[in-house]
Amino acid sequence: MSTALTAGTIHGVGLGPGAPDLLSVRADRLVRGTRHIAYFRKAGRPGQARRIAEGMLREDAVEIAMEYPVTTEIPVSDPRYNACLSAFYAECTERLNALARAGEDVVVLCEGDPFFYGSFMHLHSRLAGLTPVEVVPGITGMAGAWNATGLPITWGDDVLTVAMATLPEEELTRRIRDTDALVVMKIGRNLPKLRRAVKAAGREQAAWLVEYAAMPAQRVTPLAEATDVTPYFSILLIHGQGRRP
Amino acid sequence: MSTALTAGTIHGVGLGPGAPDLLSVRADRLVRGTRHIAYFRKAGRPGQARRIAEGMLREDAVEIAMEYPVTTEIPVSDPRYNACLSAFYAECTERLNALARAGEDVVVLCEGDPFFYGSFMHLHSRLAGLTPVEVVPGITGMAGAWNATGLPITWGDDVLTVAMATLPEEELTRRIRDTDALVVMKIGRNLPKLRRAVKAAGREQAAWLVEYAAMPAQRVTPLAEATDVTPYFSILLIHGQGRRP
Ligand SMILES: C[S@@+](CC[C@H](N)C(=O)[O-])C[C@H]1O[C@@H](n2cnc3c(N)ncnc32)[C@H](O)[C@@H]1O
Ligand SMILES: C[S@@+](CC[C@H](N)C(=O)[O-])C[C@H]1O[C@@H](n2cnc3c(N)ncnc32)[C@H](O)[C@@H]1O
Repeated sequence: MSTALTAGTIHGVGLGPGAPDLLSVRADRLVRGTRHIAYFRKAGRPGQARRIAEGMLREDAVEIAMEYPVTTEIPVSDPRYNACLSAFYAECTERLNALARAGEDVVVLCEGDPFFYGSFMHLHSRLAGLTPVEVVPGITGMAGAWNATGLPITWGDDVLTVAMATLPEEELTRRIRDTDALVVMKIGRNLPKLRRAVKAAGREQAAWLVEYAAMPAQRVTPLAEATDVTPYFSILLIHGQGRRP
Repeated sequence: MSTALTAGTIHGVGLGPGAPDLLSVRADRLVRGTRHIAYFRKAGRPGQARRIAEGMLREDAVEIAMEYPVTTEIPVSDPRYNACLSAFYAECTERLNALARAGEDVVVLCEGDPFFYGSFMHLHSRLAGLTPVEVVPGITGMAGAWNATGLPITWGDDVLTVAMATLPEEELTRRIRDTDALVVMKIGRNLPKLRRAVKAAGREQAAWLVEYAAMPAQRVTPLAEATDVTPYFSILLIHGQGRRP
C-alpha cells in the first residue's frame, strides 16, 4: 500500500526593507513556522535577507544558503556571465524542487518585494509547472528609503521613475531630466557615474542618498554631502513636488 | 500642582493593498492597540482604508471619519478646488492635533504606503512642528497588483515608470512609449483615455488591468478584454522584459 504524496509549496516571501517588524503578518507567520528556509547570499557573507530574519527561525530550521557563483571577473555583457548565473539558478531550482516533491514546504527569504527586481523571480519562472509556488508581497526597499527621509516621494500627478545605476550615463541623465520623482537602485560602484548624471540634469541639490534603509546602519545624506563610497544596499531619491492643496 | 502633559503621537499607518494579513507587524500592532482611529473617506461611503481594518479595532475604539468635501462639481484646475481641499485638510489637522495635545495617540489609516501618493501627506506636512508624527511604511497597491498577476514587474536593468491616468493623453502616450515597465494609477473614468494612450504606444497586448488587488473583489483582466468601466481602485500594469539569466 502506498500513500500519494502531496507536493510541498515553495513560498517566495518578501521581508520588507530591513526592520523585523516591517514583515507583513503573513510573511512573519511563514518565516517563523517553516522547517526549510532558503536564501541567496554572496559566498562568505551572511546575506541581507538572512540577517533580516535573524532571531525569527524555528530552532530546528534547516537552512539552505544559495551562494552566488563569483562573477566579478566576468563582465555582465559577456555571454558567459549569463550562462554562469543560469546554471546556478537551475541548480537552486532543482534543490528546492526536490524538497517540494518530498512533500516539504520551503520558505525563500527575499529582500523587499520578491517581484520587484528580485532574485527569486529567476527561481519562480523555473519552478512554474513543477511544483506549487506562492509569493508574498513585501514593503520595497525604496519605500523604506523615502520613509527614512521623512518626506513623501510623490504628490498629485507626479511621475515617478525607477532606474538602476547600472544604466549608461547618458540614459540616466535623460531619465533624471524627464521625471518629477526619482528612485535609483543598485548603486555601489556606480555612484560617481550616477552623481555626474544627477548634476548634468541639474538636480544635485534635490537628491538624497539612503543607505541600509530601516536597518541598524541606516544613513540619510544629501547627495551633495556624500562621498563617492556607498554600499550595494543604497538608494538615491529625488522627491516629487506635485500639487498639494 | 499641575502635571506637564506629554503630547500624543499621530501615526500615519500604511495598511498595504487590502488583505488584512498584508499589514506589517508594526502596523498590525498599532491598529489593534489604538483608542483613536482616523481615516479619510468619501461622504456616505465606508472608505477603503476603514474596510481593510474591519475586525481589527478595539471594542472601545473611537472613530474619526474625515469626509472629503464633495468636489465633483468643481474642476481640478479651478483654484476653488484647491482652496476647498486645503480648508478641509486644515480642519482635519486641527482635530487630530487637539487630541494629541490632550495626550492621546491617534492612528490614521492609510491605504498602501502613506508617502506614496497618499492623502495622509497633506496632514503630515501640516502637523510638522505641532506634534510628534510617525509614519509606518506599507506594501503599495501596485505591489499588490503585480502580485495578483503572478508575474514580476521588473528584471535586470528595466526602467519602471509610475504615472497617474489623470495626465494629458499625449503625455501618457509618450511615457508609455519610453519605458520598460509601467504602472498607472487613479484610473476610474480615465480608462478610455488611458486605453487610447496604451494603443498609440503600441502596447495594448502587453497591458493588464487589476481591480481591487488583494481584496475579495480582486480581478485581473488583459486590457484588450476589459470594458471601459473600472473603479478608482484599479491599476494598469505592463511588465518589464529585462535581462533574465
Ligand atoms: C536586486 S534589488 C532588490 C530589490 C528588492 N526586491 C526590493 O523590493 O527593494 C537590490 C537593490 O535594492 C535596493 N535596496 C533594497 N532594500 C534596501 C534597503 N533596505 N536600503 C537600501 N537599499 C535597498 C538597493 O538599491 C539594492 O541595490
Ligand atoms: C491616492 S492613491 C493612493 C496610493 C496608496 N498610497 C498606495 O501606496 O498604493 C489611490 C490609487 O491607488 C491605487 N490602489 C491602491 N491600492 C489598490 C488596490 N488594492 N487595488 C487597486 N488599486 C489600488 C489605485 O490606482 C488608486 O486610484
